[in-house]
Amino acid sequence: MSILERLWRGVLIVYASDSGADTANRLFRLLRGTGVPTAMIKYDGDLGRYWDCFDAIVLVMALSGAVRLVCKYAKSKVADPAVVVIDDGGRYVIPILSAHWGANEVAEAIARLMGAEAVITTAAEYMGVTSIEELARLLHCDIVNTEELPNFYSALLSNKPICIIGINELPREVRGSYVIGVNAGCEYIITVGEPHQSLEGIRMLRCVPYKVIIGVGLMNEAGINEVIKAIRTTLNRLGIGADRVLAVASIKPRVGEAAKALGLPFRLVSTDELERVNHGCATPPSDELRRLGVRGVAELAALAAGGTSLLLRKIVIGRVTVAVARV
Amino acid sequence: MSILERLWRGVLIVYASDSGADTANRLFRLLRGTGVPTAMIKYDGDLGRYWDCFDAIVLVMALSGAVRLVCKYAKSKVADPAVVVIDDGGRYVIPILSAHWGANEVAEAIARLMGAEAVITTAAEYMGVTSIEELARLLHCDIVNTEELPNFYSALLSNKPICIIGINELPREVRGSYVIGVNAGCEYIITVGEPHQSLEGIRMLRCVPYKVIIGVGLMNEAGINEVIKAIRTTLNRLGIGADRVLAVASIKPRVGEAAKALGLPFRLVSTDELERVNHGCATPPSDELRRLGVRGVAELAALAAGGTSLLLRKIVIGRVTVAVARV
Repeated sequence: MSILERLWRGVLIVYASDSGADTANRLFRLLRGTGVPTAMIKYDGDLGRYWDCFDAIVLVMALSGAVRLVCKYAKSKVADPAVVVIDDGGRYVIPILSAHWGANEVAEAIARLMGAEAVITTAAEYMGVTSIEELARLLHCDIVNTEELPNFYSALLSNKPICIIGINELPREVRGSYVIGVNAGCEYIITVGEPHQSLEGIRMLRCVPYKVIIGVGLMNEAGINEVIKAIRTTLNRLGIGADRVLAVASIKPRVGEAAKALGLPFRLVSTDELERVNHGCATPPSDELRRLGVRGVAELAALAAGGTSLLLRKIVIGRVTVAVARV
Repeated sequence: MSILERLWRGVLIVYASDSGADTANRLFRLLRGTGVPTAMIKYDGDLGRYWDCFDAIVLVMALSGAVRLVCKYAKSKVADPAVVVIDDGGRYVIPILSAHWGANEVAEAIARLMGAEAVITTAAEYMGVTSIEELARLLHCDIVNTEELPNFYSALLSNKPICIIGINELPREVRGSYVIGVNAGCEYIITVGEPHQSLEGIRMLRCVPYKVIIGVGLMNEAGINEVIKAIRTTLNRLGIGADRVLAVASIKPRVGEAAKALGLPFRLVSTDELERVNHGCATPPSDELRRLGVRGVAELAALAAGGTSLLLRKIVIGRVTVAVARV
């Protein structure tokens, strides 16, 4: 699975001036072609409302302007999206924020797509090692005692085993000295789920799993089997088990039958509830939907049913649209 | 004259970790070899006290760390130094702040010195054109109606003539559509010195010249002719006329004779006055001076005699040391 497929909340491309529009448009088409949810805007003086909405932001502009821009919004290594800068001419792809948290890999993937040069400046030891935050993202859990992170990074970068309990296997794309289960040599343990009792001389990092709500929209003709397949595809893409699904949500009662077949709870959402959702990160309706006077349903259903933030921006699977929000 | 020779206040090299020390040391020696005043520190959590002291700051560290660092201190395009980032391995030289105000050229010069790649991301139209702020710096004047700058940049970038009155010739290194004197086609005029009367349909940018104080230190054996030569060399290096010199300042009465020969006012500074100077940007004494228990004299003399900020960090010319402060 490439890094781009893991950008569940998608990529926002921002270009600053007309001289960057060609490069921005070219990247937009290339990313869409790989299936990554991709949005594009011309910079209008406010990036704040998008800052927390995407997994990666690509700024097509000169680097010094981009630096002044991100300075307005950058909060911390763990809260900021991966930010990558491309010059108007599309020659360089430069990760400038959250390099260890994905921006390097995003820049390399984009550079490959565009035939450009990725400017990687982090120490080699970080390359090819999955960061602990990225691991938590892939395991769909929240690290609660973040003050332990520096100790775990020291261990990771000196190639000591990081033992993980509470899961049966590592996501395939994880790299680094992570191992499943505990043995006598474990000095660093990540617990996913129930906390382990604390042990003398052993450091513990606690990662608490969260639940998700799956929002589903569909065309009238779509059948129940198509919905079942789309939900399975989505869980597979996120690498999350059915036990983590709090509900499947939709305005179509038919979706309830698919949920039942999968053994998942169903939550019927009314159009009134949809209308009341006011979530800054929801994908704006496409021009086509706007002409029809409707908004996309999948994301709003997941949010209306109790989701607090988007985890997977809507994806289209045949005649079914699916989005996932976390609780 | 290369851009490096115009970095009168010098370059500060900051490296973040031991893995960047080799690259930082290598650059330190290379820059010293070209005669640029160069200082080097390991980052200790506070760059603020150096931010306004150097014409260029080179950060040897990963780009994403450098961006978070400069976000703490960046103020505005005109107030910030040129900031350039080099990765620990010394592969890339990347201008990240004040690209149009010198950082591009500094990065290119450093990349040439080191055999590295300069990552230039600004639009080509800016390349090879002297910015208006850089012109003001070379003419030693302060732009007072900065709100006119956007109009003048539009003209400059569309290659319209920018007419300059109040000087007789342009500094040799100036590039762009600047012309000396006014003719019928001038719609954009920069006045250096006395303001021109305002004219219908003509835009005026006013640049007010400042005066300088030359501080001189010397070894006991240095003769008056050596001092005269050093002062002339300094004025030449700055491209500033003797009419702008408010005073030559020193703790050595002998320097007064050199000033007199040059027709310049002299200001004798007492060691008490030197001791009282508390200027954050003065060059710290070298290890050798520190062993002798003395501080450098040239910069402190210029500041003690009324200089408000350093314009030229101390340079050594034979047995004479010269520094220049502006008033």
